[in-house]
Amino acid sequence: MAERYLVISSDCHAGLPPERYRDFVDPQYRDAFDAALPIQLEETRKAAKKFLVDEVSAQWRKGHEKALTGAWDHEQRVQVMDEDGIAGEVIFPDGITEMNMPPFGAGLSLPTDGVVPDLQWAGARAHNRWLAELCQMAPERRAGIALVPICWDMGEAVKEIAWAKAHGLRGILIPSRWGRCDPYHHPKYEPIWSACEELGMVVHLHSGAAPMEDYGEHLGMMGIYVTEVIWWSVRPLWFLIWGGVFERHPRMKLAITESTAIWVPETLALMDQRYSETHFSAKLGDYRSHLSRKPSEYFRESVFVGASCMARREVELRREIGLENILWGSDYPHPEGTWPTTRRHLVETFRGVPEDELALMLGGNAARVYDFDLGKLEPLVARIGPEKATFRA
Amino acid sequence: MAERYLVISSDCHAGLPPERYRDFVDPQYRDAFDAALPIQLEETRKAAKKFLVDEVSAQWRKGHEKALTGAWDHEQRVQVMDEDGIAGEVIFPDGITEMNMPPFGAGLSLPTDGVVPDLQWAGARAHNRWLAELCQMAPERRAGIALVPICWDMGEAVKEIAWAKAHGLRGILIPSRWGRCDPYHHPKYEPIWSACEELGMVVHLHSGAAPMEDYGEHLGMMGIYVTEVIWWSVRPLWFLIWGGVFERHPRMKLAITESTAIWVPETLALMDQRYSETHFSAKLGDYRSHLSRKPSEYFRESVFVGASCMARREVELRREIGLENILWGSDYPHPEGTWPTTRRHLVETFRGVPEDELALMLGGNAARVYDFDLGKLEPLVARIGPEKATFRA
Repeated sequence: MAERYLVISSDCHAGLPPERYRDFVDPQYRDAFDAALPIQLEETRKAAKKFLVDEVSAQWRKGHEKALTGAWDHEQRVQVMDEDGIAGEVIFPDGITEMNMPPFGAGLSLPTDGVVPDLQWAGARAHNRWLAELCQMAPERRAGIALVPICWDMGEAVKEIAWAKAHGLRGILIPSRWGRCDPYHHPKYEPIWSACEELGMVVHLHSGAAPMEDYGEHLGMMGIYVTEVIWWSVRPLWFLIWGGVFERHPRMKLAITESTAIWVPETLALMDQRYSETHFSAKLGDYRSHLSRKPSEYFRESVFVGASCMARREVELRREIGLENILWGSDYPHPEGTWPTTRRHLVETFRGVPEDELALMLGGNAARVYDFDLGKLEPLVARIGPEKATFRA
Repeated sequence: MAERYLVISSDCHAGLPPERYRDFVDPQYRDAFDAALPIQLEETRKAAKKFLVDEVSAQWRKGHEKALTGAWDHEQRVQVMDEDGIAGEVIFPDGITEMNMPPFGAGLSLPTDGVVPDLQWAGARAHNRWLAELCQMAPERRAGIALVPICWDMGEAVKEIAWAKAHGLRGILIPSRWGRCDPYHHPKYEPIWSACEELGMVVHLHSGAAPMEDYGEHLGMMGIYVTEVIWWSVRPLWFLIWGGVFERHPRMKLAITESTAIWVPETLALMDQRYSETHFSAKLGDYRSHLSRKPSEYFRESVFVGASCMARREVELRREIGLENILWGSDYPHPEGTWPTTRRHLVETFRGVPEDELALMLGGNAARVYDFDLGKLEPLVARIGPEKATFRA
């Protein structure tokens, strides 16, 4: 690996065409699946109109039709990743957003409104089963993230976390918006954090959910969305920190994915200020003595930022954000990602960054967090990894 | 004023003891007032337990009992401001938080849940009437901000804005959380923005409201509150910017008060990135062609940050935040503010800042935004203003 970078994308997506999830759904939910499928297809089609406008979609797909089937096809996915120079990947649900959503509202956002908990669980389990199979076809390259709708039943959630671990998955995705459920400082979630800590399963928040229902169809609603969607996926961070979750579970890891990294320095500065500077908040009484460390210290040790397609400004701020906390990602197969021009994108974004720092952000940190086997990846990196020489200023 | 700074506090509070609002309430609501008063006193007492713990409260009041009556008493207020070196002030409701809340849920947060719109309006009008009288006792020193619950009836709101202007008030306070009402990019609010633009009334968001109802009483809830309360009062900014409000109303001014200034550089960078960098968001279609300028350009011209008791870090970032957008504030009579040691606090916070820059942040910007008459203030500043020499490094 001396001459090439190990690249691990901390943000990729995979999912089946909706009808093919049927075989993975528990038998008792297959009638419901058949009844729900046409509704899901129609809902997904409508969402697609909003989230992937036709012209962009058509232009972007042209010539990539086959490569896009890597969203679910093992062989095709291997080829796509090789061409992009990506040795390992962390896999979230949804694949091609408008084609591969798991059933029963068990998609990337894991909404709590408008879903039936039992059915959402059935959809999540179906996806997890399929994902475990996909990852087992290339276990040294794929860290699959299980869908775990933690808001409903704690016992069910803990059982699924254990199942996911036993089947080779490396972490869990939880809803970033709890909606009608309890926020994550609620003590009821303790069994979840304990299970993830003990089993070494990384907890994930992934951007996407926002209160779209409030935006209406008024001018500017999409600008509002792309601005605050970040905040909605970062928000649980301070519920976990102030709630003492990292204090009680120092080995639990959290990754916040595709939410940029731009918010990190000032968010930590603000929390540390609230923690240390007592004049401002004395009137509120003691709200910090249950934390033995400053908020930023928990962050440095336990929180990772799946920064996906980083902006140059984030690269410049990498030390303030945290060199050991940044995980780059390609977001394959989403059109906002770097695929299929990842190699060029990487050089443009990271040119001139010192080798040891870049090695951490591109793959070293992810390898550590998700327990990739570097020995097994070495021959692959030697073949497909981006050459270090091309990044020199 | 050559040797002393003009200091205008962009964040002060005033309010009557609750029972004294009776005379200012429209006669048809006085029965309701009498019925509601004991309930309000009890609710306020409970809120006080949460937001001003007894030990801090007692210690902080000791020896200041009389000076605190400046929350509603004209003569006392003059003396307090003189001693603090403050020539002018922008006045929000609530005075001493746990003692001076206007009736019927018409306090600083202007909640939309749990209030009766007609009654909230009656409470707001009562406060505005009293506030106009207080300000008229020292019109050159006091810029009063009218309570205007804009979520309900647009006609009523526009009428109140005109009333406030006619009675010498300088701006309006609107709810920072719209709750069950429409967000501020909704076209229904156009008459409000037009009225404020035409009459030169500054629109205000003031921190305080947050979804406390979701926090429960679990460990860490106050840490969560002091972290995200900022976000809840800043959030309407991007609804206004992306909604095109500043595009259509270039002379409308917005001030975001007591929400720190730490969020400004990265929030503007993020919005500008979303505006300029089309790869990320191409799939969402066109959401920006209705804006002729970058989000940060609207901010620079129309938005002001009532940064209140600034942290040294904010002082260091003053150019990135915007030298002409920062308004210092003392937050009198709140215990988290700088009173009664404002003179010392100012020197500690701003020592070594170039004079022309400090003059803007301490008073120059506020004088421009709120239309203070510098000629009338000059003799006062010559008498009470902090001496420039004491700030030199």
